[in-house]
Amino acid sequence: MEIRIIKSPSQGTIDILMRRKGSGKTQMPECVDAIGLVQGRMIEMVCAADVAEKAVGVTVEDIRGSCPQNMILLAIFGDTASVESALSEIKRKAEEGKDIC
Amino acid sequence: MEIRIIKSPSQGTIDILMRRKGSGKTQMPECVDAIGLVQGRMIEMVCAADVAEKAVGVTVEDIRGSCPQNMILLAIFGDTASVESALSEIKRKAEEGKDIC
Amino acid sequence: MEIRIIKSPSQGTIDILMRRKGSGKTQMPECVDAIGLVQGRMIEMVCAADVAEKAVGVTVEDIRGSCPQNMILLAIFGDTASVESALSEIKRKAEEGKDIC
Amino acid sequence: MEIRIIKSPSQGTIDILMRRKGSGKTQMPECVDAIGLVQGRMIEMVCAADVAEKAVGVTVEDIRGSCPQNMILLAIFGDTASVESALSEIKRKAEEGKDIC
Amino acid sequence: MEIRIIKSPSQGTIDILMRRKGSGKTQMPECVDAIGLVQGRMIEMVCAADVAEKAVGVTVEDIRGSCPQNMILLAIFGDTASVESALSEIKRKAEEGKDIC
Amino acid sequence: MEIRIIKSPSQGTIDILMRRKGSGKTQMPECVDAIGLVQGRMIEMVCAADVAEKAVGVTVEDIRGSCPQNMILLAIFGDTASVESALSEIKRKAEEGKDIC
Repeated sequence: MEIRIIKSPSQGTIDILMRRKGSGKTQMPECVDAIGLVQGRMIEMVCAADVAEKAVGVTVEDIRGSCPQNMILLAIFGDTASVESALSEIKRKAEEGKDIC
Repeated sequence: MEIRIIKSPSQGTIDILMRRKGSGKTQMPECVDAIGLVQGRMIEMVCAADVAEKAVGVTVEDIRGSCPQNMILLAIFGDTASVESALSEIKRKAEEGKDIC
Repeated sequence: MEIRIIKSPSQGTIDILMRRKGSGKTQMPECVDAIGLVQGRMIEMVCAADVAEKAVGVTVEDIRGSCPQNMILLAIFGDTASVESALSEIKRKAEEGKDIC
Repeated sequence: MEIRIIKSPSQGTIDILMRRKGSGKTQMPECVDAIGLVQGRMIEMVCAADVAEKAVGVTVEDIRGSCPQNMILLAIFGDTASVESALSEIKRKAEEGKDIC
Repeated sequence: MEIRIIKSPSQGTIDILMRRKGSGKTQMPECVDAIGLVQGRMIEMVCAADVAEKAVGVTVEDIRGSCPQNMILLAIFGDTASVESALSEIKRKAEEGKDIC
Repeated sequence: MEIRIIKSPSQGTIDILMRRKGSGKTQMPECVDAIGLVQGRMIEMVCAADVAEKAVGVTVEDIRGSCPQNMILLAIFGDTASVESALSEIKRKAEEGKDIC
């Protein structure tokens, strides 16, 4: 599992991610000071998505990879502090244990 | 083969899985206290699906991976005890023998 | 090449396989006491399909993998004895020689 | 590069290959006593196809792999002697030299 | 991550890239003295795209790889000095740190 | 990167390549005494295409691989001397340096 954060993302970067999101939502979250990126195998990403969805102040999107139904990249949008906090929680859960996520 | 369990899954996580399920069923199982996830090669997953289908109190869905027809992730929905019991049975069968599943 | 057998398969497992079969046939074989599964590279699976087609009392289906045209999993339906016999023959041929199948 | 030959192929095996052939031809070659199979990377298969096309008494089809445009399996139909001779020629050319095929 | 630069690109090369770009823009940038190419895993490329978008005098396109939604190649169009400067910045950021991009 | 040349290609081989070419051109080049084949990762092939496009007397086509948008095989059509000269130039550039192509 690999984790990155983009601070003050450019519009072009947001567009690249928006063109590939899996959900039907078309609204961008209001405040996008930062984008967290999490990449990994599908089973890990379902777990990470659940952790991020339970975090406060962020919007989670699954970004389609090599084919429409493949989820290998999660993008987490929000203010910098909230994105950082969601990413820390994902990291902590991933290191904690293998079976329960 | 890799196994995980998500307790009290968020709605967003259930949505991500529902968007990718292989079957035509559109009803979510009534009680989803937990989601079991099993990932592996296709031949293993057909066997694991059979074990889970024979377990009590759970609903099994195959989640499409990198392409619509690829089944690499199984999601098992139900109350926590039933999901845990189905996952144990899958683990036990996988360790028991290679040819018969 | 990997070989498995599922005895008394559940309806859900049969459905998962039926949704992915390559041929246009829609009829399930009458007696499905067992399902043999054979997974491998495409060239091996064409050979295994030929061996199984020549066996008695079984129906052979190629199950689509990651993309519609990819054949990586064979399912062999029939009564337990016939499926076991077809799988043994596939195993024997695969071990016998590399060039002729 | 991997090479196999199926003697007296079953109708089911011919059907599996016919469903996946790349060309628009719908006619099966008249005499199919044997099917030669050649699997490899795309650049190798273009070369092998050229060798087989120049051989006498065989019909060459490229069988689509994991996606419609991927050519990783060649099927060579004809009487046994012609198929064997085409396969020998492919083997000989592949061993002879790397640059010219 | 792999980086290349093509100086005075031929029209055929520009056409190959234009046929595969992810965005809906159909206009070529006015001055294309050079094309920078950056290839890598999806998470790296989202970061590299953000760095390039913030650079001056270049246009960034994501070039679709093995399937429509897969972004593995970035093309950066512009005058030679601007492209070289954007590529240096991408290289510098990639070497600097792993988490923040 | 792998390079091959087919001298006096058969019509069947030309057809296989023509069915997979990326461009909209439907005309075969007038003189096809030889076909040069170059296979590699996408970033390498964009560079090789540029070198070949700048060579004299050859036509360059990108041949679609495992999926429509994937370019992993270049075919270079022309008289034998021109194809050989274009392939030498591609080889020379590839060995010369990594960054500039």
